[in-house]
Amino acid sequence: MSAREFVKGNEALAWGALKAGLNAYFAYPITPSSEVPETLAREFRNPQYPDFKVFLQSSSELEAINMVIGAAATGAKVMTATSGPGFSLKQEGLSYAAGMELPFLVADINRAGPGLGNLGPEQSDYFQATKGGGHGGYRNIVLAPNSVQEMASFPGLAFSLAFKYRNPAIILADAFLGQLKEDIVFPPIAQEKFVTPWATTGARGETRHVLASLHLDLDDQSRHVEHLLSKYEEMDRVEQRAEQYLTDDAEVVIVAFGVVSRLCKQAVNALRARGVRAGLMRPITLSPFPSRSLADLASRGVKRFLVVELNIGQMVYDVKLAVEKGAAVEQIHRLGGLLPTSSEIVAKVEMTQA
Amino acid sequence: MSAREFVKGNEALAWGALKAGLNAYFAYPITPSSEVPETLAREFRNPQYPDFKVFLQSSSELEAINMVIGAAATGAKVMTATSGPGFSLKQEGLSYAAGMELPFLVADINRAGPGLGNLGPEQSDYFQATKGGGHGGYRNIVLAPNSVQEMASFPGLAFSLAFKYRNPAIILADAFLGQLKEDIVFPPIAQEKFVTPWATTGARGETRHVLASLHLDLDDQSRHVEHLLSKYEEMDRVEQRAEQYLTDDAEVVIVAFGVVSRLCKQAVNALRARGVRAGLMRPITLSPFPSRSLADLASRGVKRFLVVELNIGQMVYDVKLAVEKGAAVEQIHRLGGLLPTSSEIVAKVEMTQA
Amino acid sequence: MSAREFVKGNEALAWGALKAGLNAYFAYPITPSSEVPETLAREFRNPQYPDFKVFLQSSSELEAINMVIGAAATGAKVMTATSGPGFSLKQEGLSYAAGMELPFLVADINRAGPGLGNLGPEQSDYFQATKGGGHGGYRNIVLAPNSVQEMASFPGLAFSLAFKYRNPAIILADAFLGQLKEDIVFPPIAQEKFVTPWATTGARGETRHVLASLHLDLDDQSRHVEHLLSKYEEMDRVEQRAEQYLTDDAEVVIVAFGVVSRLCKQAVNALRARGVRAGLMRPITLSPFPSRSLADLASRGVKRFLVVELNIGQMVYDVKLAVEKGAAVEQIHRLGGLLPTSSEIVAKVEMTQA
Amino acid sequence: MSAREFVKGNEALAWGALKAGLNAYFAYPITPSSEVPETLAREFRNPQYPDFKVFLQSSSELEAINMVIGAAATGAKVMTATSGPGFSLKQEGLSYAAGMELPFLVADINRAGPGLGNLGPEQSDYFQATKGGGHGGYRNIVLAPNSVQEMASFPGLAFSLAFKYRNPAIILADAFLGQLKEDIVFPPIAQEKFVTPWATTGARGETRHVLASLHLDLDDQSRHVEHLLSKYEEMDRVEQRAEQYLTDDAEVVIVAFGVVSRLCKQAVNALRARGVRAGLMRPITLSPFPSRSLADLASRGVKRFLVVELNIGQMVYDVKLAVEKGAAVEQIHRLGGLLPTSSEIVAKVEMTQA
Repeated sequence: MSAREFVKGNEALAWGALKAGLNAYFAYPITPSSEVPETLAREFRNPQYPDFKVFLQSSSELEAINMVIGAAATGAKVMTATSGPGFSLKQEGLSYAAGMELPFLVADINRAGPGLGNLGPEQSDYFQATKGGGHGGYRNIVLAPNSVQEMASFPGLAFSLAFKYRNPAIILADAFLGQLKEDIVFPPIAQEKFVTPWATTGARGETRHVLASLHLDLDDQSRHVEHLLSKYEEMDRVEQRAEQYLTDDAEVVIVAFGVVSRLCKQAVNALRARGVRAGLMRPITLSPFPSRSLADLASRGVKRFLVVELNIGQMVYDVKLAVEKGAAVEQIHRLGGLLPTSSEIVAKVEMTQA
Repeated sequence: MSAREFVKGNEALAWGALKAGLNAYFAYPITPSSEVPETLAREFRNPQYPDFKVFLQSSSELEAINMVIGAAATGAKVMTATSGPGFSLKQEGLSYAAGMELPFLVADINRAGPGLGNLGPEQSDYFQATKGGGHGGYRNIVLAPNSVQEMASFPGLAFSLAFKYRNPAIILADAFLGQLKEDIVFPPIAQEKFVTPWATTGARGETRHVLASLHLDLDDQSRHVEHLLSKYEEMDRVEQRAEQYLTDDAEVVIVAFGVVSRLCKQAVNALRARGVRAGLMRPITLSPFPSRSLADLASRGVKRFLVVELNIGQMVYDVKLAVEKGAAVEQIHRLGGLLPTSSEIVAKVEMTQA
Repeated sequence: MSAREFVKGNEALAWGALKAGLNAYFAYPITPSSEVPETLAREFRNPQYPDFKVFLQSSSELEAINMVIGAAATGAKVMTATSGPGFSLKQEGLSYAAGMELPFLVADINRAGPGLGNLGPEQSDYFQATKGGGHGGYRNIVLAPNSVQEMASFPGLAFSLAFKYRNPAIILADAFLGQLKEDIVFPPIAQEKFVTPWATTGARGETRHVLASLHLDLDDQSRHVEHLLSKYEEMDRVEQRAEQYLTDDAEVVIVAFGVVSRLCKQAVNALRARGVRAGLMRPITLSPFPSRSLADLASRGVKRFLVVELNIGQMVYDVKLAVEKGAAVEQIHRLGGLLPTSSEIVAKVEMTQA
Repeated sequence: MSAREFVKGNEALAWGALKAGLNAYFAYPITPSSEVPETLAREFRNPQYPDFKVFLQSSSELEAINMVIGAAATGAKVMTATSGPGFSLKQEGLSYAAGMELPFLVADINRAGPGLGNLGPEQSDYFQATKGGGHGGYRNIVLAPNSVQEMASFPGLAFSLAFKYRNPAIILADAFLGQLKEDIVFPPIAQEKFVTPWATTGARGETRHVLASLHLDLDDQSRHVEHLLSKYEEMDRVEQRAEQYLTDDAEVVIVAFGVVSRLCKQAVNALRARGVRAGLMRPITLSPFPSRSLADLASRGVKRFLVVELNIGQMVYDVKLAVEKGAAVEQIHRLGGLLPTSSEIVAKVEMTQA
């Protein structure tokens, strides 16, 4: 698995997690994420991954996230993957995990639409992953890959951030990216060992470690949530990540993440060919959202931002908040598992340009 | 149950739902919402409420919301109540219901904090109720009572809106409001019969009614989600509700919902007594959010908005988006089940005033 | 529903239970018993049966039997029906109920074979119903109808015995009898009200009633099980029931219960026509087993007993124990949902006769 | 773990299974059997037991037995342990397994009494293990150890018999034996590899193996159950096991299994000391029941059999059937977790002797 390999997005995610030192995977398969557990089941006991010690299929989505919580409490590198309906079912667990400050990785390979959802790509879990989801006002770390290469390399980044902040990390991808095959290079097997003095690995005469989401005393609970808040503010200060493409001299900047950002890059190229000074700003961390990059662009004179999303309009609010005063924010969306074409995006830019 | 009665918020919610013609309640009790099912269990078979035909305790939160979905599909007035952890567990069901366009009522009596949460009041489920929650980019109708009187009258309003738009409605309250006792007047028993031509009540030779969240054809699914979006835009246009208090000539406007808005009203009175032209804008519908009222205030010269929330800062984003360019938006939060005092709020206004 | 009616066995069972004053039915449907809950669901709220107050479909077999236990603890007339696999799943509950001395009715409409089982008739749950099943050495009351008429009248008998002894009662039938249609007369609606001073209906100032299967003190537990034993001995003394057909002068007696006893009666008639003094002894109560009738026959000179069963040989042991010393006990079985013909039975009698 | 060791019965059972080559254990702990999974959890990944590849705690008794079924279908040596209530919950699964002809081991460490049951020793699951339990008229192989040494050596015997007959095997012990500590010698680690041509290990181009309990065609199902029956008859012919103690010249024989047989041996010694020609016959296989040994004793002139059981009388029926004509069968029972004393047993023998 050295050199270039031609693999599916979901397989890249699985092998990427193994390269990052995955210790335990708790599976409850759901299309279009099922190649993740399928790949890991095949690699279980592959001597190349001696740290991969537990692969377990649970009997429900709720069991899977609660097994993740139990295993993560020991300081292990733990993961599960799911799609929208399963991600919803895991929200109670995610809220607990945020309150307990547990680091682990959940991949959500979006379906299209509320409810059952079809298997086309959408980005409609943006709010659920970045804002809402479970009860209690916590924050996830959310990474949005836009290529099979990033599907392979983001598990390592997700674990680093999760352990640095003791916080759940989400990789938010979609049905298209999960099924896409591309030629990639896997990262080397991680040597990084995270220091986890908080882990519940058996007191054996030392101080007991207690991981709890709840403090019955209101002042204690308040201090706990204030502590969480200051952690989120620190993440916001330090961890915003975005890709800039031809934004230096841009007058109009397209903002897009995930699979649709690739079409937007094509659109930027086409616009440049026609003399339009267009650029692309691609959020890599959706939470913390790269608002400073957008504010910078707005302050450097970008007059128009075009948000392209595969949902009814979610990230557009974060873009508006980021650029606040001083620029027009427009949007294109596409729903139901459909993708816009790059020429539609070009047309939208030129129409409003006129 | 005519004339004034001295009742708890949760009891008012239960009786209010009965007065509104409740047909079925599916219970999975969780503190601090448990007086809702307890009250309804006692009233079951009370001949005063002949339409109240089903009271059923399920064996899990997931069962409860799926029973709600099944009963709501017949066109009945259906309800359940829960608190944060249970609300999270119901998110998958809520996403299905939104996709199926089912009208019903869920009351979420917030706890404080993520995870288990203590029983103090918080408003940290704001995002979960108004933005995120389940997968798929749908919208709930969300009402925020701030008194026991409104706990009694909002079930009727919630059913009206839910049936008008064929959409789930949420009443978002908190542990404090659920336990508060006040002197109220119940609304009369509703005579309103909703027309539900879509209901699945048995085809018997007529056209079959099918309620589904999923369309396998991508174009059909796209049309379905576009239809949902246009419905949400219509709700946004028609149903924004807010209470204004002394905002006509205000220079500074406090924005707060639910229990904490009562402290803010006290603060406004105290500020007026000191000569500060303060006002209060209280969102009653959190979704659709009353952004036009805020925009109006901003355009009429309000220079400062102070958002007071019992969470790490959620509604503040909607306020910033609403007033966009032209006014300062500040915030106070309090966490862990604690409430700010009205003098803290006064001090915050005066401090920044200086 | 007066005069003669032409109904299925399972329907007769359902209406028979209604006529007997059924208060509550907890359903988890399973073929070939599903017409029982289907019929009762249709009759729910039929004003002819004002005492039929609860019809509830549970989400598993385990839930159904535990709901039965809860409702029976209030002194109500409660029932569920199932088939073999579901009956196995209910064994833990049945053991609790026997320990708590709860009266109720479970109908087990046998499938053929272990495991999934096909839908042909078998009598292979004989041991499970009469001897084993749950843990702890308790006894069920077990009735074995052999006609649609008895399917209609045995629910009343079962409730009478269950309440008399505070003990679960089983109606053991099979796929054939459940589906058979015959012309029957329903019993009149029962006026009998059972006295249930033990029922847990709310203490309200009086002595609390506690129903428990467990006594932590070994002497208390011993006394409790001795009490159960003496109750079973009393049932054995008083409640043995059997049908005798031409046994007065019989030299050979066929012993058979349920559907196959009808073929045996034909065989007896055929044997009599050929001059063989054959008779039929049909156990109606399988537990307590009518051993005294058999012992009487043995002591009155019957030299041969032929046990005909639709299983690998179960009742044959009870027959051997009953007649103990002094007569030959032979057997015919048929498996897999197949029935022997009456001429096979005749041949078996004549062959050994010779 | 060579030489003599001083261990608890439940620990001996666990290590005995490991020595016998256990591959997989599926746990759902229940007192008084919990030391079995606790011991195995500690030994998991002990390099001394390289074949012990899976230790998994399920989330219910039903899951545990169904995991056992799944693993056993691959030809692995699989085990679970439980107590009465859990054994009842596993009956549906056991019926399936018998129909599918799967070899594995279930240990049932009896509680006392029906329902919840206390933690004293009883033998009240005798019928459930040997006759009834699940639906469908199948037979388990049932072994009854009476010492910690046998707790250690019977897992190996159980696996041998289970694989020889492709049939579930039960070790039936009790709370006393599970907690008793004795000095024992463990058997050496088994080298035996069972041949399992029927196992479902992946067809890979060869004939597919299908393991099913059900045949929809009635003739096929009949043939299948006839095949099971002939297997049970073969087991009955070949595998009856019992311990005889001073029965050669006995006039009175005590019949007892498990923990209470030890008291009976003391009683035999006491009776011999008083000149009574008493003996002990201890069934080791409860199913197949050692009826031929009993019949032999009866035919060799034993006039009296005294059955001593910790239940309301279960094995006594098998003893009566075995000796059929020609001897008196008396019984002593003790309930609720209590044991008779050896002098009570002596007194009973002498009383009737007189």
